[in-house]
Amino acid sequence: MNLRRTIYRVIETSAGKRRGLSLVFNITLITIITLNAIAIVMHTVPAYSQKYDRLFYDFELFSVIFFTIEYALRVWICVENERYSHWFYGRLRYVLSASAIIDLLAILPFYVSLFATDLAIVRILRLFRIFRLFRISKYSHAYRLILNVVREKKEELVLSLIMVIFMLIIISSVMYYVEHPAQPQAFSSIPATMWWGINAMATVGYGDIHPITPLGKVLGGISAILGIALFALPTGILVSGFTEHIRYQKAPRRCPHCGQEL
Amino acid sequence: MNLRRTIYRVIETSAGKRRGLSLVFNITLITIITLNAIAIVMHTVPAYSQKYDRLFYDFELFSVIFFTIEYALRVWICVENERYSHWFYGRLRYVLSASAIIDLLAILPFYVSLFATDLAIVRILRLFRIFRLFRISKYSHAYRLILNVVREKKEELVLSLIMVIFMLIIISSVMYYVEHPAQPQAFSSIPATMWWGINAMATVGYGDIHPITPLGKVLGGISAILGIALFALPTGILVSGFTEHIRYQKAPRRCPHCGQEL
Amino acid sequence: MNLRRTIYRVIETSAGKRRGLSLVFNITLITIITLNAIAIVMHTVPAYSQKYDRLFYDFELFSVIFFTIEYALRVWICVENERYSHWFYGRLRYVLSASAIIDLLAILPFYVSLFATDLAIVRILRLFRIFRLFRISKYSHAYRLILNVVREKKEELVLSLIMVIFMLIIISSVMYYVEHPAQPQAFSSIPATMWWGINAMATVGYGDIHPITPLGKVLGGISAILGIALFALPTGILVSGFTEHIRYQKAPRRCPHCGQEL
Amino acid sequence: MNLRRTIYRVIETSAGKRRGLSLVFNITLITIITLNAIAIVMHTVPAYSQKYDRLFYDFELFSVIFFTIEYALRVWICVENERYSHWFYGRLRYVLSASAIIDLLAILPFYVSLFATDLAIVRILRLFRIFRLFRISKYSHAYRLILNVVREKKEELVLSLIMVIFMLIIISSVMYYVEHPAQPQAFSSIPATMWWGINAMATVGYGDIHPITPLGKVLGGISAILGIALFALPTGILVSGFTEHIRYQKAPRRCPHCGQEL
Repeated sequence: MNLRRTIYRVIETSAGKRRGLSLVFNITLITIITLNAIAIVMHTVPAYSQKYDRLFYDFELFSVIFFTIEYALRVWICVENERYSHWFYGRLRYVLSASAIIDLLAILPFYVSLFATDLAIVRILRLFRIFRLFRISKYSHAYRLILNVVREKKEELVLSLIMVIFMLIIISSVMYYVEHPAQPQAFSSIPATMWWGINAMATVGYGDIHPITPLGKVLGGISAILGIALFALPTGILVSGFTEHIRYQKAPRRCPHCGQEL
Repeated sequence: MNLRRTIYRVIETSAGKRRGLSLVFNITLITIITLNAIAIVMHTVPAYSQKYDRLFYDFELFSVIFFTIEYALRVWICVENERYSHWFYGRLRYVLSASAIIDLLAILPFYVSLFATDLAIVRILRLFRIFRLFRISKYSHAYRLILNVVREKKEELVLSLIMVIFMLIIISSVMYYVEHPAQPQAFSSIPATMWWGINAMATVGYGDIHPITPLGKVLGGISAILGIALFALPTGILVSGFTEHIRYQKAPRRCPHCGQEL
Repeated sequence: MNLRRTIYRVIETSAGKRRGLSLVFNITLITIITLNAIAIVMHTVPAYSQKYDRLFYDFELFSVIFFTIEYALRVWICVENERYSHWFYGRLRYVLSASAIIDLLAILPFYVSLFATDLAIVRILRLFRIFRLFRISKYSHAYRLILNVVREKKEELVLSLIMVIFMLIIISSVMYYVEHPAQPQAFSSIPATMWWGINAMATVGYGDIHPITPLGKVLGGISAILGIALFALPTGILVSGFTEHIRYQKAPRRCPHCGQEL
Repeated sequence: MNLRRTIYRVIETSAGKRRGLSLVFNITLITIITLNAIAIVMHTVPAYSQKYDRLFYDFELFSVIFFTIEYALRVWICVENERYSHWFYGRLRYVLSASAIIDLLAILPFYVSLFATDLAIVRILRLFRIFRLFRISKYSHAYRLILNVVREKKEELVLSLIMVIFMLIIISSVMYYVEHPAQPQAFSSIPATMWWGINAMATVGYGDIHPITPLGKVLGGISAILGIALFALPTGILVSGFTEHIRYQKAPRRCPHCGQEL
């Protein structure tokens, strides 16, 4: 029982007597996750892939073993947290938490690939472990601030997204009927035109598809201006969220001298 | 009379005893509108268009009948709303309201196409019904907030738009005289140059048209920087709108000295 | 003397008994300026240029005569304004004011072109008269707000611009030494690379010039991220300006009941 | 001793009796730095490089001598500043300060190139001297404001950058597995795909690399929308920083009840 609590303090919290050990563990974890990200990215470069094939495989094996032991440990010790205190239902709830699912997805693909053919795309699921880094770093305060603001303004942001999608469908539909006769290849259907639409509204503009008829160009100009509004709206929403948060946190509520509310 | 009020409560409000029925009706309506949007978009994909031609036609027929009945019902029951209470002038005012016109435009094209040739472009008018979704969803609060901010800052936003158009005309005119001699094909006239101008200022940059002379490039650089200002201005306006709204909501309502409401 | 004051009230202010005449004059002025803008833009379209050549010339003649009379009137009556009250020095100061110079530039090119060859580029100077519209429209309040905010934040905005130019010079210089060996044609010199730089930082990206070496691409990625900062900085500055203004204007300074400061 | 203090007042501060001399020195310094920037940029233009080769060399020689004397003077006089008052350790600390290192890097390349081959890329290090301009100009207040806001929001901004890099890695990895089979040349590896990713998220879109498969285009659309969020987040953070600063400056300093300072 004591061992479980000690490991819990080392792995899950940065408090108590084991702060030094916890720091060592967390730095090790961050290093392995970062090396994993680099390995996954570099493995696709043909030059490195062939030369260091053995090294990539060995490191993947080591990572999976390390992550598997870590995952097992976390499931074992999670009952120390009072939110998951029941020996079975607590563990089940922990296993189904977003954080634990990400951890599982980081190791599962390897075991599946032992029996099945190569599942290259699932390997990148491991990359999502990167988000674990936010929990430990000294940036956790800033992370929580950003997360809180996004969460508080969730409805406005989701609505902005829905508006964007609606605007995209409507503009792309009109554009399709305008440009299709002139460029039947590029604007072959409304879904194909939506690829133009999203890049026009987000002001990316790859140049692989763009209107050539006068009316299409007028519509393209309107889309570009709508794109500016598209940037302004979520920015405005986020800013008001940040401003609100800061006012609430920093405003002194009482005069330090007379103690009355301000 | 009782039937009319019951239907009014089901269709137009989400209050009273018929909340369950109202929810069912609204979910049905959202589903049909969303399916309509998908059908209109997918109907233009050649692969689907030929394969499911019959299905698309049947669904269109069904949608038009559903929307026609719904439109007739709304005109019949609108007199329950006190804003449209007169049996004739009330209904006329309702029929001329933006919302009712959109509903009419969603069904009219079908009836017109029965007598005339195919009017593909008018079919997309039905897409505007999508905006009806905002009225029912739980996002209606966020929608009203965004709408209010935009409405309150209407003058500043319209002025920004006018400034953009002026800037566009001036920059495109100068660019035309600079680049026309070097690229008579691409910069063939000021209106043609305005296609470059709007995409440069909105930072889209398709790459189909861009200056090649040194002076033209300097001008292009200035346009790019003006484009940044173009993004900053409406954002600044919208942000101050959002901030204002929130302050108004959260502001203390009572004087700290006498305790009376402000 | 009475005539001069009457004309002054009609042309320069919208106050007094002659409000109706002033409105008529202003609407006429706006119409002629707008038609001028359209004429200048459309004159460059070959199809219209040949067809309506006579009309364009007649309208230009009419505009210049109208603007010349208007300019002469404004110089004559400006002494009614107490800022320009001296019969000679006042008029001189008025003639040298930004607004009067723009008005002069709108007519001067025509008289110069009577004696010299065609000076196409100077014709667009007339477009700047468009800014006169801001003075009369009902958007003048919003215009003044935007102008005030920009003026108040002038130092920060100019500094942002200087920072952008410095960043541009530094990034383009590094890029030149990185990409020149690989693409001696496109990245032929630092000024040529600055055309890439401004379009990368403003996220335009025409695609006519972009890095191809790995190091150049890393540098290009950094420029793109710097470009985002480039957008955020002036937006932040403008927003704080707008917010400040609104707080100052709207905050009630005293309780309406007890009269004490809040 | 008196000479050292006099020179210190002229070079490092703009206070005391020698304000006139200090102004002359600073204007000379700004002029030489600006001319240096222009010379470094223009030297790469083949037309100027050959024609004014001698002039460029002479100006470089003059600049290096000027900057060397200035650097020696600054090291000599820095002990007048109480932060660097010790004759040896104070000077060492000054030499190791960011500002002094930039000054050294501006002259070192020239001396190295006397013995070694041409080191073109190190010449641009001199450009960083440009940042010295901020210290003297009348924009120093705005510069300090911007710097303070950025410094205060450092954690949030760094976190935004880390989030961007993570998002970039994840999106590019997924894109690689989606587009590699269709475009093995363009999307040759994940690092190669990251070049697409950063330009898509920063909405640059050169057009040299873009998805062509339907799934890749959907992913590209999501990246474009994520790119908008990418712009909104740092803007929101910076804005709240600016707003905070202004509130702090303008906030009432006294309690409305007891009248004491807060």
